[in-house]
Amino acid sequence: MNLLLFESKEMMSDATIVLNDRRSEHIIRVLGCNSGDTVRAGMINGSVGTGEIVSIGRGRENSEVVLRFTAEGDVPAQPPLDLIMGLVRPIMLKKILAQAASIGVGRIFLINANRVEKSFFGASLLKDENYRSYLLDGLEQAKDTILPQVSIHERFRPFVEDFIPTIAKTYSRKLVAHPEAGEGLKQVAGTEMTGRTLLAVGPEGGWVDFEIEKFVEQSFVPVSMGARVLRTDTAVVALLSQLMVLMGE
Amino acid sequence: MNLLLFESKEMMSDATIVLNDRRSEHIIRVLGCNSGDTVRAGMINGSVGTGEIVSIGRGRENSEVVLRFTAEGDVPAQPPLDLIMGLVRPIMLKKILAQAASIGVGRIFLINANRVEKSFFGASLLKDENYRSYLLDGLEQAKDTILPQVSIHERFRPFVEDFIPTIAKTYSRKLVAHPEAGEGLKQVAGTEMTGRTLLAVGPEGGWVDFEIEKFVEQSFVPVSMGARVLRTDTAVVALLSQLMVLMGE
Repeated sequence: MNLLLFESKEMMSDATIVLNDRRSEHIIRVLGCNSGDTVRAGMINGSVGTGEIVSIGRGRENSEVVLRFTAEGDVPAQPPLDLIMGLVRPIMLKKILAQAASIGVGRIFLINANRVEKSFFGASLLKDENYRSYLLDGLEQAKDTILPQVSIHERFRPFVEDFIPTIAKTYSRKLVAHPEAGEGLKQVAGTEMTGRTLLAVGPEGGWVDFEIEKFVEQSFVPVSMGARVLRTDTAVVALLSQLMVLMGE
Repeated sequence: MNLLLFESKEMMSDATIVLNDRRSEHIIRVLGCNSGDTVRAGMINGSVGTGEIVSIGRGRENSEVVLRFTAEGDVPAQPPLDLIMGLVRPIMLKKILAQAASIGVGRIFLINANRVEKSFFGASLLKDENYRSYLLDGLEQAKDTILPQVSIHERFRPFVEDFIPTIAKTYSRKLVAHPEAGEGLKQVAGTEMTGRTLLAVGPEGGWVDFEIEKFVEQSFVPVSMGARVLRTDTAVVALLSQLMVLMGE
C-alpha cells in the first residue's frame, strides 16, 4: 500500500478520518506508525495529500487509527484511455482490474463475445461492485486516486452497434487488438497522440472475425504487437502501457 | 498452445518428430487432429513452419503422434531487449518469465538486491533449468521460437560492477526502472530507438538508493511511468512493451 485511500464520505468536517479495518492494521503492523507520524493518503476520485496520525487506539475488532487529512495539489486527471474487454474468468479479471488501475484507465467496459463463457457474467465478483477492492489495490499500488468506472454489457451487438455510437465522439481514436492486424500502435497512431483513446481487447481465445468486422464498422482500427499472440492479461497491460508512452504520459 | 515447439535434437534425419507427452495429448484432445492434418510448429531457437501429422497411435503412457516438419522462412531474430530483474518469489517469477517470453526478450539476468529474500535463490524453480517450461509456455502463446537465455547472479555488486562492463558495449542504451526518475521512456530514449536495450527492473519493493546509484555509475538512465509505482510483474510487461513499440517492433 503506497497510498492510503479513503472515501470522501469517510472524512468528517474537521478533516479527520476514523480507520478501523485493514488500513488501520496496515498503519500499525506494517508501517509501525505512532501518533504524530504522517502517511501518504488520498481521497478516492480526489486529491492526494498527507494523513497525520492523530490517535491510535483499540476498536471493537481492529485497531482504530484517526487521521487528519491535508490535500496537496489538484485532483489527478482521469487517464486518457478507456478499455473494452471481452469478459474473462474471475481469477484473471481480478488481476487485470488491479493491473489496469495501476497503469491508469478511465472506464472499463466488460462485454460479451463469442469466446466468453456465459457463466462468467454470473460471477460474484461482478455483483455489488465486488470488483472494486481489486481496482483500489491497483490505485494504492500506483499512488493514484482516480477509480476506473466499470460497466458490464451482456450482449455484444447492442454494445457495439448501439452503445458505442453514443460515446464515439469522446475519442480521438478507437483501436481493436487483433494479432493479425499486421500493424503496431506506432504505425497506427503515431508517436504524438493526443485526446482520448478507446482500446478493445478480446477475451481468452481472442475476438472472432465477425466481432472484428463489427468493431471495424464502428471505425475501430486493428492493432497488433508484431505477429505475437498475447494472453488477455498480458495484452491489456502491454497495450495500455504502449498507449501511455505514445501519449507521453 | 498457438505454436507447437520441439527441440532440434527431437527431429530425425527424415524431418519427423515423435511426440508422446502433453504435446501429443494437445494435438489429439484439444485440437482434435487426424492423420494428414497440419499444425503450426517451430524448432526452439529455429524456424517456424508446418507439422504434418504422419500418424497417431498409442504409446506407453500418452498417445503418440508423429509429425513431419517443414520449415518456412528464416529463424526469427532475437528480440532487441535484455532484462535484469531483482529476483522475486517463485510464483511471481513463473508468471513473469512466461509473460516476458511472450513479449520477447533476449537475455534475462536474475540478480540479488537489498529487497530480495535470500531464500528465493534456493527455489527449486531455479534448479536444473526448471524455469524453462514457463519460458516455453510464453513462446507457444506468442508463436515465437527464440528462447530467452536465463542466468542467475547471487551477488549484486560483482554483477553490476564487474559483469555489466563486460557486456555493456552490446547495448545502445541501459535503463533502470525507478518510480522517482521523473522521466518516461519517450523522454529518455525517444521514439526512434535502434540497437539493443538493457532494462533493469527492481524486485518487489523496488531498488534501494544505493542500487540505483550503482546502476547510474554504470551509465544506466533512470526511467519511470509517471509517478506510478508498479508491481514488479506489471512493470516488466509494461516497460518491455513500451520499449517494443518505441523500437517499432
